[in-house]
Amino acid sequence: MGFSFIPKDSNFFVLFNKQAQFAVTAASMFAQQTSRGPFDAESVSKMRDIEHQADEVAHEIMNRLNKTFITPFDREDIHSLACAMDDVIDMIYTITNRMYVYKIKNVDQDLIEFAVIIEKSVRALAKAIEGLQNTKNPQCALDSCIEVNRLENVGDTMRDNILGKLFETSTDPIHLVKWKEIYQFAETVLDMCEDVAHVVESIFVKQA
Amino acid sequence: MGFSFIPKDSNFFVLFNKQAQFAVTAASMFAQQTSRGPFDAESVSKMRDIEHQADEVAHEIMNRLNKTFITPFDREDIHSLACAMDDVIDMIYTITNRMYVYKIKNVDQDLIEFAVIIEKSVRALAKAIEGLQNTKNPQCALDSCIEVNRLENVGDTMRDNILGKLFETSTDPIHLVKWKEIYQFAETVLDMCEDVAHVVESIFVKQA
Amino acid sequence: MGFSFIPKDSNFFVLFNKQAQFAVTAASMFAQQTSRGPFDAESVSKMRDIEHQADEVAHEIMNRLNKTFITPFDREDIHSLACAMDDVIDMIYTITNRMYVYKIKNVDQDLIEFAVIIEKSVRALAKAIEGLQNTKNPQCALDSCIEVNRLENVGDTMRDNILGKLFETSTDPIHLVKWKEIYQFAETVLDMCEDVAHVVESIFVKQA
Repeated sequence: MGFSFIPKDSNFFVLFNKQAQFAVTAASMFAQQTSRGPFDAESVSKMRDIEHQADEVAHEIMNRLNKTFITPFDREDIHSLACAMDDVIDMIYTITNRMYVYKIKNVDQDLIEFAVIIEKSVRALAKAIEGLQNTKNPQCALDSCIEVNRLENVGDTMRDNILGKLFETSTDPIHLVKWKEIYQFAETVLDMCEDVAHVVESIFVKQA
Repeated sequence: MGFSFIPKDSNFFVLFNKQAQFAVTAASMFAQQTSRGPFDAESVSKMRDIEHQADEVAHEIMNRLNKTFITPFDREDIHSLACAMDDVIDMIYTITNRMYVYKIKNVDQDLIEFAVIIEKSVRALAKAIEGLQNTKNPQCALDSCIEVNRLENVGDTMRDNILGKLFETSTDPIHLVKWKEIYQFAETVLDMCEDVAHVVESIFVKQA
Repeated sequence: MGFSFIPKDSNFFVLFNKQAQFAVTAASMFAQQTSRGPFDAESVSKMRDIEHQADEVAHEIMNRLNKTFITPFDREDIHSLACAMDDVIDMIYTITNRMYVYKIKNVDQDLIEFAVIIEKSVRALAKAIEGLQNTKNPQCALDSCIEVNRLENVGDTMRDNILGKLFETSTDPIHLVKWKEIYQFAETVLDMCEDVAHVVESIFVKQA
């Protein structure tokens, strides 16, 4: 457990904000690609770069954690937060890459809307993580967490509607298999954002 | 780690039993729906209500955990137990909802049998969790855990047989994609029940 | 946390090496079956035996962990390592079994190559785990971890190329659904190997 009565080590906060910024970059790039296209080798390679850089930040957090005795909040929360944020970024890369592997030419309106929700959710996460340092006024961070949870519910309903439509109207099973997976990945990003929000919430609960 | 030589806090037990009861309600409602149908908007909404209420119990357990210094057993086991039970209930809701999204009209005999196994497994879990408080006589709880493990193996074999049949006889790939997923979800419920049983077993091992 | 300044309990090392040997046996049996076939009931049953025996080793590690106060490295790392290795072996069994359930007659060259990568990765893991005891000279174990990470990247690219080819050329959607799953499982084995390598790396980082 952390010792919150001891001067905080600000470096973890810097690293978490850095990681959150990579998530925002990935999510906004994904939203741009869905609305303007294309999912070509170059866009996948750009997204891979972001994913790699974010990965290095995650590694830095873990290394620092393993070598630091006093941490600004619970060790297991630092570990969970870094992993959960990393999962978000990995998943955005995975969708981007899969769109390219499946040689998808026409992105439909539903995915464009989904990408907007994902970007909103990741931006709310970044705000929540920024708020971690401000333990005297947790309300702003907690409101962002509530927003992330709300967007996950929105995404659930969207995915259900889209899957229902896909299975009702699709006559090409191979097309269906591709898009079923893409929408499930999209919804998984929102689930992973929610996991991050849960870690942030639990950090505040422990400090209350 | 918990301090088992200190008077137990009974409230965690009350909450875990409450959570287990929601799991039993969900599993028995699912078994009824598979045998009698239909998977309509109303049945999904009822299942969602149960899932939401169970979710609140899980949150209560987490909040209490974060604010309690002395716990009746290891902190990480309390966390794992609440999450693992929550996963079981979430997954039963997910199948119910997916059946509705896929507009499945005719439930075949295999799923009805699977739902019976799921209900048996969840009832065994509820018994195991009830037994957590009775640390002097763990045998009844441990027997329930063994039953949960046995049912998971039964489910594995059922899923393999059903998938084999599905891929051998199915000529409609879209039908196949739907049912492949439903049976995998059904087997996943049993995997998740096994995860709960493992946590219960490890709690008893530590107290032995 | 472990107390690394206290004489090590060598039994955990013996058990981890035992578990790693079962993984090597499973991976090499899988590589043989892909190259020579067949995936029949007998080969599944042999693989299940290995999986069961490895499972018992994992249980032994957990039981010992629950009853041991002083451990050679962090308790949570012992737990993670045993679980992560168990996941690798389970997944190799799952692919073997699924090949049999899907009644796959002709294994193509791509899977044969994938199985070779899997065997290499598991053998590198076994070396890394062997090196855990040699804390004065971690380089050999760490080099093996780097090799596991490298092979995971190789597998990622292979899966992408294979999926791309599959979706571009396949005209039989049921065939596509089977093979999409098999290649994803194959890549998942490499992901799980990477998870093991991460645990090993973090054990060394803490001891540095």
